[in-house]
Amino acid sequence: MSLVMCERIGHEGRRPSPFSWRIRYALAHKGVVPEFRHVRFADVETIRSLSGQHFVPIVTDGDRVIHDSWNIACYLEDRFPDRPSLFGGEGGRGLARLVNHWSDNTLGVAIRRLIAADFILCLDAGDRAYYRSSREAAFGCTLEEYCADRPRWFGEFHTVIAPLERTLAEQPYFTGAAAGYADYVLFSVFQYARLGSPDEFLTEGTALRRWRDGLVQAFDGLGNLYPGYPATA
Amino acid sequence: MSLVMCERIGHEGRRPSPFSWRIRYALAHKGVVPEFRHVRFADVETIRSLSGQHFVPIVTDGDRVIHDSWNIACYLEDRFPDRPSLFGGEGGRGLARLVNHWSDNTLGVAIRRLIAADFILCLDAGDRAYYRSSREAAFGCTLEEYCADRPRWFGEFHTVIAPLERTLAEQPYFTGAAAGYADYVLFSVFQYARLGSPDEFLTEGTALRRWRDGLVQAFDGLGNLYPGYPATA
Repeated sequence: MSLVMCERIGHEGRRPSPFSWRIRYALAHKGVVPEFRHVRFADVETIRSLSGQHFVPIVTDGDRVIHDSWNIACYLEDRFPDRPSLFGGEGGRGLARLVNHWSDNTLGVAIRRLIAADFILCLDAGDRAYYRSSREAAFGCTLEEYCADRPRWFGEFHTVIAPLERTLAEQPYFTGAAAGYADYVLFSVFQYARLGSPDEFLTEGTALRRWRDGLVQAFDGLGNLYPGYPATA
Repeated sequence: MSLVMCERIGHEGRRPSPFSWRIRYALAHKGVVPEFRHVRFADVETIRSLSGQHFVPIVTDGDRVIHDSWNIACYLEDRFPDRPSLFGGEGGRGLARLVNHWSDNTLGVAIRRLIAADFILCLDAGDRAYYRSSREAAFGCTLEEYCADRPRWFGEFHTVIAPLERTLAEQPYFTGAAAGYADYVLFSVFQYARLGSPDEFLTEGTALRRWRDGLVQAFDGLGNLYPGYPATA
């Protein structure tokens, strides 16, 4: 029985979610081709009926339902132990969890300040009111106000990514000589920026840009499999 | 022939350097007892004569001279492959390098904003003018001005450490079930704060505080082997 991955889908087939991207790459790394099941961004009821909570992706494997991308990655590592490792050993698994939290809490927040106002066009037109009201309630201001001080947020983004750039100046991937789950987690946030905004935030000629572009091309161009940022809404 | 570790020493035997602490713990992890050679903070000439550069620690192993704490950690891992691993596999080694850069560039800078003005008393009285002039030239302001807006820097410190706290709420060490080099790197920066300032920055009851206090006690209380912050200068 094949694995089923349930993910949110946006405007005309767009898939900007970083949590889905890290699992999409983890599945490709393990050589597992899942079936996909799609829900719309605001379709919280369907998501909840699958797993009792409202985050995606959700992976089902027969009777097992796994949610939270970190749990899914660990499940894939342990379910397919003879396939290439996602973590490169137990030390790598431990530190990948730290990278996961840092990506979501620090890198993701820095990028959200740059793209949240543009991102809304990636969503199905019917989901945009939900996105705006839920985010504006969380941010305590409009999406446009949240992103308004662009020089400040661009400066903070560059401070945040400095350790990433230094690391990739010394080794090809964060996990070392080969890409691993921590690479996919970090990549997923840059992919969210790449698909969720009309702007390019990574400077040509940097190690980070080279690494990101390499991962876009990995697994037969997996990062380009779906449409990019809306030219028109 | 035993290894020799050359490190800076401060006021009446104090040893606050984070770079020395991470190597001190790495050596203990490998069960290696080095000889120590001490230089004073401002004695750049002696340090340069040993290795052609001015950073410590420096480790010598017979004819080999290794400098830069990251290179020393890798050297120890490869030199003593049958002792407990510092990295827990190649994935752990790759990500430890990212943690190393993040610790020095992000965590270390956040902590420096809290302690730089107090830290001067850890140094030998004869080294303090060198510390003040070199740091004030780098910061572009006095040490006291650099640290003046304490509520701001305390808030930034808490933002920076949030992913650390989340990770340790889920697993005992950053490297996983057992401490590894990435733990020692991060610990070394908190140890620098603990020995370099009269203040406690980690809140009682947090996972980070529990982890740090546990590492202070590890290896027969290695973290308490040298005197703490000066009661008097």
